Amino acid sequence: MDKQVMASDADGREAADHVVVEEPLQIMVDGHPIAVTMRTPGHDEELALGFLRTEGVITSADHVRKIDAESKANHALVFLADGVEVDLSRLTRHVFGASSCGLCGKATIDAVQERLPPLHGNPAFPREALLHAPEMLTGEQSVFARTGGLHAAGIFGTDGTMHVVREDIGRHNAVDKVTGWAMHSGLDLSRCMLLVSGRVSFEIMQKALAAGIPLVAAISAPSSLAIEFAEQSNQGLVGFLRPPRFKVYVGRVE
Amino acid sequence: MDKQVMASDADGREAADHVVVEEPLQIMVDGHPIAVTMRTPGHDEELALGFLRTEGVITSADHVRKIDAESKANHALVFLADGVEVDLSRLTRHVFGASSCGLCGKATIDAVQERLPPLHGNPAFPREALLHAPEMLTGEQSVFARTGGLHAAGIFGTDGTMHVVREDIGRHNAVDKVTGWAMHSGLDLSRCMLLVSGRVSFEIMQKALAAGIPLVAAISAPSSLAIEFAEQSNQGLVGFLRPPRFKVYVGRVE
Repeated sequence: MDKQVMASDADGREAADHVVVEEPLQIMVDGHPIAVTMRTPGHDEELALGFLRTEGVITSADHVRKIDAESKANHALVFLADGVEVDLSRLTRHVFGASSCGLCGKATIDAVQERLPPLHGNPAFPREALLHAPEMLTGEQSVFARTGGLHAAGIFGTDGTMHVVREDIGRHNAVDKVTGWAMHSGLDLSRCMLLVSGRVSFEIMQKALAAGIPLVAAISAPSSLAIEFAEQSNQGLVGFLRPPRFKVYVGRVE
Repeated sequence: MDKQVMASDADGREAADHVVVEEPLQIMVDGHPIAVTMRTPGHDEELALGFLRTEGVITSADHVRKIDAESKANHALVFLADGVEVDLSRLTRHVFGASSCGLCGKATIDAVQERLPPLHGNPAFPREALLHAPEMLTGEQSVFARTGGLHAAGIFGTDGTMHVVREDIGRHNAVDKVTGWAMHSGLDLSRCMLLVSGRVSFEIMQKALAAGIPLVAAISAPSSLAIEFAEQSNQGLVGFLRPPRFKVYVGRVE
């Protein structure tokens, strides 16, 4: 979603320009406000659903009875299914310095993995799917093409199928949107790869693990903690995926 | 700060690679944990000082008696000066959906500007300083050169002087670090420009306003809300600063 504004260039000429829209979205669960995220409007139900999954609040689409998202009102009202109880205190973990969060990367990973156990063996990255994914991702980045202003995330099958691509001004939101889409459509993420248009940090790996995605690839660089996280959680991690080149940091390519 | 890891390329050859370090930093104020941010270690005192300023908790370096930052322990212990009282509840504003946060971009801006009034007239971007800044910023991005993995922020005088450049895996952290440096050194930010290596969102403009910086330039795109924020707070905003080109979204170049 983009918006037209006026901008003047280095020679002082004014012209119309397209910029990406950034607006707050408030996510409410059964009437409780739990988060405000600055996002690009659109696919707000997917964003809310994916956010709850990748932040570890719910583990299945069945946990949610319905989501009323009204983009213009900038809120997503999530209603849990009968009998489902969630621990909203989990959401605070990176925000306030809960002692459980720990004070080093290792402790941070340990704290996350206490509730998100490592995967049981991960598939290899399929070379052909890996090499074709960036072009497919770029082909879907329609708003980026107009604005140059946002991130994309995509989910690809190990057979090379592109399942979904979403764009957002926030890297985490783009990941939440594709995860929410996958939950909604019942896609088995255990044979899928997440591709992100930018860098990979600790939090992206954590969101992928919470969603059960074993393979993460990025067009740009991984951080030290993303690599450590992938090693400990048995996820594969590829960076600098710029065909014909890429770098395998964790896992293997076949 | 970077770290050496092993990675294999598309042909399966293993080689040493440098990745940017990502570790949590816990910021404590008088013994209260107030935030954990994932950052690149280094300049942690500046980060803590700048964070408190750009989040509106303090407005002067005098409000802080001392900061004990221990990079290895990943904490920054801030001690307030005698008699200084701060409102730590402000820090929660974008995290939990306080009703004051509002549900649209306009309301979000209004909420911020209730406590951060607009600037009184802003200087024009000086054309020559603007055109030379990106090259100077790049020249200082030593960790980026090795890792491709992080953001940079710099503060430049309107006379073209480069005052400081800092790199961090988090865009907000890089801005906090240069702001903290400026507070520490007593630099008058009212005649300065903030340059960021990536995109400009609402939060970057907000941090600049809280620090009293009237001009913000970015190598990449601004968001819709960043532009609206700049208009309402009387800040200048330039995007796509890629000499000899740039786009002026708000303000003027002379």
